[in-house]
Amino acid sequence: MESKENERLLLMIPGPTIVDPKVLRAMSKPVTPHREKEFSEMFLEQAERMKQIFKTKNDLFLLAGSGTAAMDAAISNTIKPGEKVLCIVSGKFSERFTEIVKCYGGEAVELNFEWGKEIDVNKVKKVLEENDDIKAVTVVHNETSTGVKNPVQEIGKIVKETNALLIVDTISSLGGDDINVDEWNIDLCATGSQKCLAVPPGIAAISVSEKAWNVIEKTNGHSYYLNLKKYRKHKHHAPYTQPISMVYGLKVALDMMFEEGLENRIARHRKLAKATREGVKGMGLKLFPEKEEICSNTVTSLCVPEGLDDKEIRGIMKDKYNIVIAGGQAHLKGKIMRIGHMGNVIERDVLCTLACLELALKKVGFTLDLGSGVKKAQEILKK
Amino acid sequence: MESKENERLLLMIPGPTIVDPKVLRAMSKPVTPHREKEFSEMFLEQAERMKQIFKTKNDLFLLAGSGTAAMDAAISNTIKPGEKVLCIVSGKFSERFTEIVKCYGGEAVELNFEWGKEIDVNKVKKVLEENDDIKAVTVVHNETSTGVKNPVQEIGKIVKETNALLIVDTISSLGGDDINVDEWNIDLCATGSQKCLAVPPGIAAISVSEKAWNVIEKTNGHSYYLNLKKYRKHKHHAPYTQPISMVYGLKVALDMMFEEGLENRIARHRKLAKATREGVKGMGLKLFPEKEEICSNTVTSLCVPEGLDDKEIRGIMKDKYNIVIAGGQAHLKGKIMRIGHMGNVIERDVLCTLACLELALKKVGFTLDLGSGVKKAQEILKK
Repeated sequence: MESKENERLLLMIPGPTIVDPKVLRAMSKPVTPHREKEFSEMFLEQAERMKQIFKTKNDLFLLAGSGTAAMDAAISNTIKPGEKVLCIVSGKFSERFTEIVKCYGGEAVELNFEWGKEIDVNKVKKVLEENDDIKAVTVVHNETSTGVKNPVQEIGKIVKETNALLIVDTISSLGGDDINVDEWNIDLCATGSQKCLAVPPGIAAISVSEKAWNVIEKTNGHSYYLNLKKYRKHKHHAPYTQPISMVYGLKVALDMMFEEGLENRIARHRKLAKATREGVKGMGLKLFPEKEEICSNTVTSLCVPEGLDDKEIRGIMKDKYNIVIAGGQAHLKGKIMRIGHMGNVIERDVLCTLACLELALKKVGFTLDLGSGVKKAQEILKK
Repeated sequence: MESKENERLLLMIPGPTIVDPKVLRAMSKPVTPHREKEFSEMFLEQAERMKQIFKTKNDLFLLAGSGTAAMDAAISNTIKPGEKVLCIVSGKFSERFTEIVKCYGGEAVELNFEWGKEIDVNKVKKVLEENDDIKAVTVVHNETSTGVKNPVQEIGKIVKETNALLIVDTISSLGGDDINVDEWNIDLCATGSQKCLAVPPGIAAISVSEKAWNVIEKTNGHSYYLNLKKYRKHKHHAPYTQPISMVYGLKVALDMMFEEGLENRIARHRKLAKATREGVKGMGLKLFPEKEEICSNTVTSLCVPEGLDDKEIRGIMKDKYNIVIAGGQAHLKGKIMRIGHMGNVIERDVLCTLACLELALKKVGFTLDLGSGVKKAQEILKK
């Protein structure tokens, strides 16, 4: 049904990301009985390796589902009806946490920051001081919808001093930017497979601290499918059938990650992010986040120049250059575009994306010197 | 890590089942953006095709998760705390429904039948007559744990006359035995991918009748991730990232299913089931279900002969013949063995399994004439 051309579509979006053919091939291995020793051992081994990426000694579970399943598990296992959760909101995915909290009868105390702006950690501190009945704090590490990285480590220092749990979504950063679950005092850390881990979507992960277990044990738990107590109790940490082929893919993706080295991988993401930002600015575009220090290292968001139609620009990128970049979400639709540089993205991908973006912009009437963005990116990459 | 030999392991278990290499290869296609038209259309098309297998005009959703996710969705979207659910229990998976009901605060009215025995439909009728406050009835169509097929159509006729919803687990029968969601009045029908559909695990499906929607609309819904209202509302019927590669696999598996023809496929399963039963009896073993009319067409359960160790028998099957058959679950551990003949199983698979089982039984000291089971199976298959 799809042309060959489409299978070479270059994914420069914030997920799903380019999956290495080695990982794809691993997924086409024959399936094996999931309760036999061979698979169980391999499965638990991947959970152990994921702990290294989370930088945690906490329990970690692999779930059959999307990243949202892990976000759901973090809330549904810990929050009782009527309990207050401080939700730090500055984008679509941090909003999702408020929806989940409300869904489970919790009271979402929203601390809103304008999308694209920095989170003021002092305000977080103030709300926690004024509300000693807050049971958990939710924060999205890397807000995919705005291209902003949030100060989880700083927030962790504050939350640590309270009885509240720190619940963090690292879906679009884990494996591409620094996360340190134990050092940052993250009690429940949720992630998905299809971003920086560079595995197709369909498997999620969550880590659970002792502080979190103490709460979970006293909570009835709202979900059957996502009940973490069941996961812990099961000897394979998998009470229901695992997504076997996805686990095969994850294994090979983790092989590749450890071969590259996690720190090298993070450095690569940082360099590509920097090159993308310089390139974008170089061609006369404005970054969307209010300042560069808070820009994400996995996705760059930029303002669509006044009077231009992002759909047209993205259409040219896709139809003419076979590159897909993302538009904005919710009220940022038409206002921003987002370039993902996650997972397996390499220097040439960033360079061709910038070069084609210049051409696409020119085509829709934007004034720029061709090569001006690419040159700036090259200057970063030559280092 | 695994030897080549293991990749030829013949799966004669009730899931996961043998996946066709064409399906496996489809899963190794590059991932595509899940929100782009190309994928969305293909995704919705697979849901439409699934409706044909469910034989329903009801809404149908594909979920990222295992079959249990669909079972959970059926209960968590319809049952309010304190509400009564009649759970017809005669095996491990029908027990699971009681657990899910209790998890969501419902009152599970258990109607227990001995594992392996026929469900008495009159008793179901009686409980429903005596309890007009029962909101739903759960039944497992094909009890994987016992190899018994339950009379869903008969139960449907009774439930139809009440306000209760009929919730059916068809995880281990859909695509291998006759299911007629609309004709049988099934309000919520849950299935998984790794059984008769012959796709690896990781994608589930659920159909929802108008009668069910009327209840769902008045129910708050316990789950965020599995909230069916969100699925219906979303234009792609997928509020969260779909398991893209699994959908690719499902597509090709459905291509194959429609090429074979659903009725032909069901006839094949019936014939293989009959051959397996005759083979098993022919070698002097006893079927576990109390009578042959209730035997499953997708998995055959047989009694382990007195004094023999099923682990030893299954060990020989696996180590010497590279065939895996299943043991019993819960209190049937050590008492029964189960041979799956689901999905892509063909005549030669059944014949070699029976032939090897004879050898394995002989090895552990069981008295039988070699070839006696195989011959009986051949007599069925020659027709």
